[in-house]
Amino acid sequence: MTTRWLTPDEQRAWRAYVAATHLLEDAIDRQLQQDAGMPHLYYSILANLSEQPEHRLRMTDLAERTKITRSRLTYAVTRLEKDGLVRREDCRWDKRSSIAALTEEGMAVLERTAPGHVETVRASLFDHLSEEQVGQLEEICTGIARALQEDGERPTPDDVPWRRRSSPPPCS
Amino acid sequence: MTTRWLTPDEQRAWRAYVAATHLLEDAIDRQLQQDAGMPHLYYSILANLSEQPEHRLRMTDLAERTKITRSRLTYAVTRLEKDGLVRREDCRWDKRSSIAALTEEGMAVLERTAPGHVETVRASLFDHLSEEQVGQLEEICTGIARALQEDGERPTPDDVPWRRRSSPPPCS
Repeated sequence: MTTRWLTPDEQRAWRAYVAATHLLEDAIDRQLQQDAGMPHLYYSILANLSEQPEHRLRMTDLAERTKITRSRLTYAVTRLEKDGLVRREDCRWDKRSSIAALTEEGMAVLERTAPGHVETVRASLFDHLSEEQVGQLEEICTGIARALQEDGERPTPDDVPWRRRSSPPPCS
Repeated sequence: MTTRWLTPDEQRAWRAYVAATHLLEDAIDRQLQQDAGMPHLYYSILANLSEQPEHRLRMTDLAERTKITRSRLTYAVTRLEKDGLVRREDCRWDKRSSIAALTEEGMAVLERTAPGHVETVRASLFDHLSEEQVGQLEEICTGIARALQEDGERPTPDDVPWRRRSSPPPCS
């Protein structure tokens, strides 16, 4: 098969995308490490739980929401549980699954950390986008996420992260 | 200071951005792990070196190009050197710095891996964007990267990743 190399326009967009996503993730992780001693993913887990009724989610649903593999989620939740921010519970209606529940301390950490996190997201990203660009970014990212989660006739391909046990080794 | 919370439009864009970047990095890392046994960052290091005259770069310049901290780059280059894909050399004109050089084997791995990588980038990203959106993505990402690398009067703030020794712990 002939390789469909990137056009010059696509190459420039790809390089800018890789640079921007690295720098943005670095800025966000750094603020959260400084203020709450946790990386962005851990914060996202707490934030996702806080939005649920009773602050609880099945682990499988939490993996789907955070777009990560089950093994990576298990590792993160184990760490958060050790710090007293999340509690694992048995799932009453699905014996194969378990529940992650936000503790009161987890909610307190989230409430204390949220203003600084939002300020960083705003200062690193939204302060540099026009209203029009906010809409463009949403449309582009929604399209990409949809494509990577749907696969023609099968609505969700088996190789989405949260259906896999293992992820590629961490990014260091 | 009053927190400048995100507007509903910004919240939707942010969630879509986080989902898309996680899914895209997962797809790209997975292909590179399968085909070349390395994550995206390692591939980027090889690709950056291959574009240089004599396939060489100072470590400090390589960190700036890949937007990562010096400690993370040192770790990655040490691994690539063990696999025979990169060689470290002393820098003749800057005794405090050292050089990373792509080996012939590194170049061969890159050439063998590039078609599959580009196909994944295309299938995961560009196949789902219109020409107009490619331009929008470039403009948005260039703006974000510029803002995170410039800081008002100082052209490059001291806290960009490649001027720091350590990074936040890896994302697992």
